Amino acid sequence: VPDAEIIAVGSELLTHERVDTNSLFVTEQLNVLGVEVRRKVVIGDDRARLAAAIRDALSNAEIVVLSGGLGPTEDDLTRDAVAAALGRNLIFSDEILAWIEQRFRLFQRKMADVNRRQAFLVEGAEILPNPRGTAPGQWIDLHGHVVMLLPGPPGELKPLFVNECVPRLTRHLPPQVIRTRFFRVAGMGESDLDALIAPVYTRVANPVTTILAGMGDIQVHLRARAGTAEEAETLLEAVAPEIETLLGDRIYSRNGDLLETVIGQLLRERGATLSVAESVTGGMLAQRITSIAGSSDYFVGGFLTYSNRMKTELLGVAAELIEAHTAVSEEVARAMAEGARARTGSDYALAATGEAGPESATGAPVGTVFLGIATPAGVEARKIGSPGERQRVRSLSTQLALDLLRRRLIAQR
Amino acid sequence: VPDAEIIAVGSELLTHERVDTNSLFVTEQLNVLGVEVRRKVVIGDDRARLAAAIRDALSNAEIVVLSGGLGPTEDDLTRDAVAAALGRNLIFSDEILAWIEQRFRLFQRKMADVNRRQAFLVEGAEILPNPRGTAPGQWIDLHGHVVMLLPGPPGELKPLFVNECVPRLTRHLPPQVIRTRFFRVAGMGESDLDALIAPVYTRVANPVTTILAGMGDIQVHLRARAGTAEEAETLLEAVAPEIETLLGDRIYSRNGDLLETVIGQLLRERGATLSVAESVTGGMLAQRITSIAGSSDYFVGGFLTYSNRMKTELLGVAAELIEAHTAVSEEVARAMAEGARARTGSDYALAATGEAGPESATGAPVGTVFLGIATPAGVEARKIGSPGERQRVRSLSTQLALDLLRRRLIAQR
Repeated sequence: VPDAEIIAVGSELLTHERVDTNSLFVTEQLNVLGVEVRRKVVIGDDRARLAAAIRDALSNAEIVVLSGGLGPTEDDLTRDAVAAALGRNLIFSDEILAWIEQRFRLFQRKMADVNRRQAFLVEGAEILPNPRGTAPGQWIDLHGHVVMLLPGPPGELKPLFVNECVPRLTRHLPPQVIRTRFFRVAGMGESDLDALIAPVYTRVANPVTTILAGMGDIQVHLRARAGTAEEAETLLEAVAPEIETLLGDRIYSRNGDLLETVIGQLLRERGATLSVAESVTGGMLAQRITSIAGSSDYFVGGFLTYSNRMKTELLGVAAELIEAHTAVSEEVARAMAEGARARTGSDYALAATGEAGPESATGAPVGTVFLGIATPAGVEARKIGSPGERQRVRSLSTQLALDLLRRRLIAQR
Repeated sequence: VPDAEIIAVGSELLTHERVDTNSLFVTEQLNVLGVEVRRKVVIGDDRARLAAAIRDALSNAEIVVLSGGLGPTEDDLTRDAVAAALGRNLIFSDEILAWIEQRFRLFQRKMADVNRRQAFLVEGAEILPNPRGTAPGQWIDLHGHVVMLLPGPPGELKPLFVNECVPRLTRHLPPQVIRTRFFRVAGMGESDLDALIAPVYTRVANPVTTILAGMGDIQVHLRARAGTAEEAETLLEAVAPEIETLLGDRIYSRNGDLLETVIGQLLRERGATLSVAESVTGGMLAQRITSIAGSSDYFVGGFLTYSNRMKTELLGVAAELIEAHTAVSEEVARAMAEGARARTGSDYALAATGEAGPESATGAPVGTVFLGIATPAGVEARKIGSPGERQRVRSLSTQLALDLLRRRLIAQR
C-alpha cells in the first residue's frame, strides 16, 4: 500500500491564528482507503520553496495531495510550482475557461481577467470538476505516483475529494477491501471504555480498533482489510458483535451522527416535543439542539435561569426549595425540569443546574452538576461530577444531559 | 533577519483527529521577534524521515524549532534524529540524570530505566531547563543556524519557549525593537474594512499591517520594527491613530479581549443587568455571554422561543403582531426584547429572530435576521442579512447582537 504526503499551500496558514484543517479530512479519507499519511507540510506562497517541497514529497511518498494556491491572484502558485517540480508545461485549457465563464454568467457577474489564470492545467493533468468554486482540481498520474491539486476552501475541497479523488485512488490502489464498524458512545470515560473492550479487540490485529475520545463522547472505529468483502466481514464479525454487546445502550450512533441529531430523530419518530431549563449550561444545551436543521419541529424553547429569582419567577421553582437545598441540588433540578415542561407544554424537558466555576455560589464544589429530566412518565434527577475548568464543566454537562434524554426516549419507545 | 522552520514530531499528529497547535504559539512568539516562519512540517516517529526533514529545514531556514519526541520511549526519536542530521554524537548527561532523579524523588515515584533515555544530550547542546516535565529542552548553536529541541506537551513547551528560547533568540537576532497596535473590530465585513483603511496602511511598509477575519469579527495588527523603542513608536504613530479614527467605535478591544468579555465589563461598570430572548440564535447568545466567568453578576437569564406560541406565551408577544408581520420582523424583534426586559426585570435585553435555514418558515429569505434591543432609553430593532448556511447565520447574528448591545452601552455611558 502506498504512502501519502499532504502539502497545504498559503502564507495565511503560517500565521499564528490559522491552522490547516483540510489535512485532517484528507487524512481520514486516505486512512479509510488504507493509506497512511507520512508527513504534512504547510508552506507559504513561494514558488521555489513550493516546487522543492513537491519534489521532496514525491521522493518520500507515492501519493501527494496539495491543497490551496489555485486562486486567481499572483499569490496562487500551486499550478506553476507543480509544473516546475515535474518539468512540465502549463497548458491553457479552453474547457476550463468556458466553465469559469459560464459560472460567472450564472452569478451574473463579469469575469475578471485574472480569473484566466485559473484555466491553466499542468500538462497531462486530468480536470477534477469543482462545482462549488471557480478553480477546478487537477489529477496527475505519474505511473507509480499521483499528484493532486485541490482547492483550499474546505467547502470545495471536501466534496471534490470524495467525488473525484476517492474513486480514482481506489482504482490506483492494490485491490483490497476495507470494511468498518463504527460506534459512538456517550457518558463513559475513555479508560473505562478501554478496560471494557480491550480484552476483545486485542485478541486480533485485523480489524484494527481505534478509540478517539472527546468531551463525554468516544468514537470506536474497527477497520478490517481483506482480499474480498466476505473475508473482511468475517474478520469484523469475530469481534464487532462482542464489542457492541459490551457497550450496549451506551452506543448512540453507528453512522457518525451527532448526539443532537440522534435525539432529533428519536423525538421526531415519537412526535414528541422538547424544552429546556438551563442554568449551568447557559444556553449550550439549546444551542446544540437547535444546531440541527429542522429542530423547530420538536424543540419548542425554554428558559435561561441564571439566578435564583429567575428560577422562581420563570420556572416556578419554589423559593423555599432553593432555600432548603440550594440552587445546585437534585430537588431544584427536578423542579426546573417540571417547570419547563409545564410552562411550555412540551412532552419532555431537560434541566441543568450546577457550579461551572471558577467560584462556587452555593458551596457545592466546582464541577457539581445536577441534571433534571421531566417526561410523560415522571421526573427525575441525576448528579454528575465534572472535573476541570468552566468550559469543560459546561460541555460535559450538556453532553450528559442530551444522553440522559436519549436513554429516556429509548426506554419509553 | 533570519527565517524559521517548525517541525512537529509525533505519529499521533498525523491522525485525522489531532492538529499541531504548538506551532501557532511558537509562530506568534517568533513573529514578535520579527522572525517569519517559512514552513511547518508534521512528521511521524520515524528516525530516517525525521533526520532528513531536519537537514532539509537547515538548508531552508536559520532557525529550526522541533517540538515533541523527547519522551522516554523508543518512539521518541528527536534526540537521535538531530544527532544523525548534524553528524554529532549523543552524550549521556549526568546533570540531566540527576535532575530527572530528583524530580521523581519529589513526586515520590521510582524512576524507570527508560527515563535514562531522556538524559542524552546532542553533543554541544545547551540544556534548557523544563521544570514542568522530565525532558529538558536542548539548544544547539551552529554559528549561523540554531536548532531547538522542545518538549511536545504545550504546558511544558510554552513556558520553556518564553523563558529559555526567547532570551537566547533575542541575543541571536540583529538588535531591533518591535512595537505593536492591535484593534478588534465587530460588525464590518473584511473587504469593507480593508477598503476603509488600506489607503492609510499601504502608505508605509513599516509597520506591517495584518488583517485577520473571523465571523463578523476582524483583527487588525500593526507591527513596527526599529532600532529603538522611540523609532518604533514614531513609525506606529504615522498610521495607527489615523486607522483608529477611521474604525472609530467599531473597535471593541485593543488588548485581544473577546466581545463577550467587553460587554461583561461594560455591564459591570454600569451596575446593569442583561437578559435575552433567542429564537434564531437558539441559545448561542446566552452561551457566549455565560462563557465568561462571573457572568452571573450581570446576566439574569432569558427565553428560548423557538415557536410562535412560545413567543406569545413566554414573552408576551401579541399573536396578532406575529400574524400581521410574521415572526421574522422588526416588530416581533422589538416585542421580544421588550418582553424579555419586562419579564426578567433586567436593565437591558437582546432579542434575535430570523431564518437560519435551510428552509424558511415565514417566507423571509434564509439569512434574514432581526435583532431587537430594549434598554432603559427605549426599544429598537435592526435588520441584518447574513448569507451562508445555518451555523454561519447563527454565529454572525450572535456576534452582531452582542455588538449592538456594546454600542448602546457605550452610548448610554
